[in-house]
Amino acid sequence: MDREIKRENYRHHMPVQLRFNDVDPFGHVNNAVMFSIYDMAKTEYFRAVLGDKMNGGTFAVVVNINADFIHPIYYGDKIEIASAVVQLGRKSITVAQQAVNLTSGSVVSQCRTVLVAFSAALNDSIELPEDIRKRFIDYENNILL
Amino acid sequence: MDREIKRENYRHHMPVQLRFNDVDPFGHVNNAVMFSIYDMAKTEYFRAVLGDKMNGGTFAVVVNINADFIHPIYYGDKIEIASAVVQLGRKSITVAQQAVNLTSGSVVSQCRTVLVAFSAALNDSIELPEDIRKRFIDYENNILL
Amino acid sequence: MDREIKRENYRHHMPVQLRFNDVDPFGHVNNAVMFSIYDMAKTEYFRAVLGDKMNGGTFAVVVNINADFIHPIYYGDKIEIASAVVQLGRKSITVAQQAVNLTSGSVVSQCRTVLVAFSAALNDSIELPEDIRKRFIDYENNILL
Amino acid sequence: MDREIKRENYRHHMPVQLRFNDVDPFGHVNNAVMFSIYDMAKTEYFRAVLGDKMNGGTFAVVVNINADFIHPIYYGDKIEIASAVVQLGRKSITVAQQAVNLTSGSVVSQCRTVLVAFSAALNDSIELPEDIRKRFIDYENNILL
Repeated sequence: MDREIKRENYRHHMPVQLRFNDVDPFGHVNNAVMFSIYDMAKTEYFRAVLGDKMNGGTFAVVVNINADFIHPIYYGDKIEIASAVVQLGRKSITVAQQAVNLTSGSVVSQCRTVLVAFSAALNDSIELPEDIRKRFIDYENNILL
Repeated sequence: MDREIKRENYRHHMPVQLRFNDVDPFGHVNNAVMFSIYDMAKTEYFRAVLGDKMNGGTFAVVVNINADFIHPIYYGDKIEIASAVVQLGRKSITVAQQAVNLTSGSVVSQCRTVLVAFSAALNDSIELPEDIRKRFIDYENNILL
Repeated sequence: MDREIKRENYRHHMPVQLRFNDVDPFGHVNNAVMFSIYDMAKTEYFRAVLGDKMNGGTFAVVVNINADFIHPIYYGDKIEIASAVVQLGRKSITVAQQAVNLTSGSVVSQCRTVLVAFSAALNDSIELPEDIRKRFIDYENNILL
Repeated sequence: MDREIKRENYRHHMPVQLRFNDVDPFGHVNNAVMFSIYDMAKTEYFRAVLGDKMNGGTFAVVVNINADFIHPIYYGDKIEIASAVVQLGRKSITVAQQAVNLTSGSVVSQCRTVLVAFSAALNDSIELPEDIRKRFIDYENNILL
């Protein structure tokens, strides 16, 4: 990925509770499971930024997810997900996320998700509503690209 | 469980497609995953019996699930789930299920689920509708207790 | 289930972090997912009681799981799992668990799991080792049946 | 993604068995679940190409996954995953995958995964072994970039 954000620049951090069946036969947290964890962190992040504007979570739909797997995660590792909106397009939102192993301090995985603002009523993509754009700018002023 | 049903007496059989992350660090299909698999087979079974009467799958809610784990399942095993309604109460339905390893022929796990007929409109349990009861009796006449 | 244990009698409590895709199309935490959550709580509980005796988690294998689903759980609910060993047989261990909705105070689900002590070296069930039995008795003296 | 491969050019196709709890509260197959499905298809594909060379599945580790979500998938849709190795680097393998809705004929999602050849004995990345490289070339001669 083109640009790395330092952990101290993220404002939203969420610890992860790993489940025993997140771990695959290699003894690692399965890569596919990481996307459920990134999804959970994104939901919590949007709730933190948007609160009542979140509108049932349907304000946007995911169009692309791009993740790097840097180090394996083992059951028992303390993992935290940092999340931030890093770009706001006319219709799109780009969220950067990092999974940090709190014991080693390493970034073990990172993920970039592009969402498009969506109207359930119109069943179509729309321009990002101004009130939602403003909330992200207020929350993430220092990290927006 | 009190009563075992022979495989040849089951009418509904569904092969299972195992996923790599169904397998846990012990190399076995995780017990918790088996409940997703039983749930999938139950949904297919209800669809086969009820068809258009199924009403979005909401005709009943699960109140109890009881499963025996007899032999481990390994990635690559060919597994089939057999499902049948074995009891119809005034409001309740009891589904018996078996997971069979088709290579060894063994029953590797069995499950019994009790559901209660439910009205989303009333948000309450109801008597099992006669048309649904009749479908189960027609489909499973020989296996009902 | 035959016997209910009051929440205040449980010694081990674990809060649950729900994931967005734990929720099914009915808007409820899926029943099958609850077994992953019970499994996670059981692993944490065994770790709390047994510590270094846990031997990679392989000291016992699950032979039966029996769960009641009492109230639906919604995304956003604060859920806690209470776990306790309630019976120690010659070879078997019975774990009782409750899922409590911390907002309403209700027990939303309860689960009973029977495990059998297992030797990976012998690939067979064994008598419950005395040091493990003693740890459970010391931890749960007041709740054992 | 830079380059689209036509469905008829894929040699490996795998139908997907969807599970009820793959579906999220929006009624769509959850995006995160798609990565388990892509993972399953990749495992089957490697097994088809490599057979006994697969060495427990550990011949390579995933370093990047990049997926586009084009159309929602609903429970009951017939979905097939097409998989092919499209690039072989000195140490790396790039797998392209498509999820096709067989009813509509649409590509509903596509995914690109980069893996690096790995030696468990050395616990390090290695050059892609010649016998494995040859198997991929023999299987996918017409699709390699």
